[in-house]
Amino acid sequence: MEIRRLQIPKQALNKETRNSDTTRYRILLAARETFATLGYERATIRKIAELANIHPSMVMRYFSSKDGLFTASSAFALQLPDLSGVSPRKAGETLVRLFLERWETNQIAGDLPTLLRLSVTHPEGREKTIAVFTEQVEPAIRRLATSGDPALSAALIATQLVGLAFLRYVLRLQSIVDVDRAVLVTQFGRTVQRYLEGH
Amino acid sequence: MEIRRLQIPKQALNKETRNSDTTRYRILLAARETFATLGYERATIRKIAELANIHPSMVMRYFSSKDGLFTASSAFALQLPDLSGVSPRKAGETLVRLFLERWETNQIAGDLPTLLRLSVTHPEGREKTIAVFTEQVEPAIRRLATSGDPALSAALIATQLVGLAFLRYVLRLQSIVDVDRAVLVTQFGRTVQRYLEGH
Repeated sequence: MEIRRLQIPKQALNKETRNSDTTRYRILLAARETFATLGYERATIRKIAELANIHPSMVMRYFSSKDGLFTASSAFALQLPDLSGVSPRKAGETLVRLFLERWETNQIAGDLPTLLRLSVTHPEGREKTIAVFTEQVEPAIRRLATSGDPALSAALIATQLVGLAFLRYVLRLQSIVDVDRAVLVTQFGRTVQRYLEGH
Repeated sequence: MEIRRLQIPKQALNKETRNSDTTRYRILLAARETFATLGYERATIRKIAELANIHPSMVMRYFSSKDGLFTASSAFALQLPDLSGVSPRKAGETLVRLFLERWETNQIAGDLPTLLRLSVTHPEGREKTIAVFTEQVEPAIRRLATSGDPALSAALIATQLVGLAFLRYVLRLQSIVDVDRAVLVTQFGRTVQRYLEGH
């Protein structure tokens, strides 16, 4: 279990900073493990503190809230595969299929429904959500886009896929929860394909 | 200013219930006015209580939280026009244009971005959001749909339009905030048109 963005060269820090950094790192590891195992609701500061072998008040001192700890500890590394071999005519469907997989598998990407929920309640949640889009999703889509305006393609595709995720996995609107996965792939695949081609 | 769903026949209630109903009604009117004038953030329980000429603790006794009061006091009556005269080929664009108007005009429909935000944090917000969709949006779309499965058409359209609203008005993702309104109408108009026709 690796946490990105925490590989600060130890020799660059003085002893006090190093200790504080170690504590912070231990809390993050414990939080990530606990959120992944128990889910957001059942993971408590107490349980995370226990796993990190530290007093709960120290967890709060470092991260101030469970929401803050959640966004800080989850990498949300989508690990998008290289899509350069995908047939351009199949790119839309491939993206939709990949998107559904990431949203339904907590293991690969972290708890995305919780992240989307926190994006509207917690400034750090919003920043993280935007970072996931701009650093991971947008570049992948831009490489696939054949339209004259790849940034627009990416923005349009984001609206379609985020709307799907929001209604199916966060709000759980029955009429979209009930739709077969294959129908989603076909229908949204066509839409995403059109946005990629820009017509 | 009329609040729907509160027109309980007075003679059906005994005196105590009647008083309590009047108080509740006065709070709702004051809340609706305050949210509409000041917006969700600047509207406080104190200001609402002042306008209702009541102690703030009474507001909390009736509605327990600002979020609860917000969802209870706003009608979210979209007042969708009769769309039966719209040319079937223009239905997609017409729906997108209407949708953007409703989201950008607080006066007509109430504060929809706040409702969408509360739909993920507050059970009453979720219920209200779902009710707006199933009671107002879905029937309007179903009447326009020419596909074999109008319920599916409505669900697909909801994903596209809610995703647009979420990224543009709630999360405020720069790359979608920056897109010209005319481009949104053309692009999403085509998508909505395809979902209406079911191909």
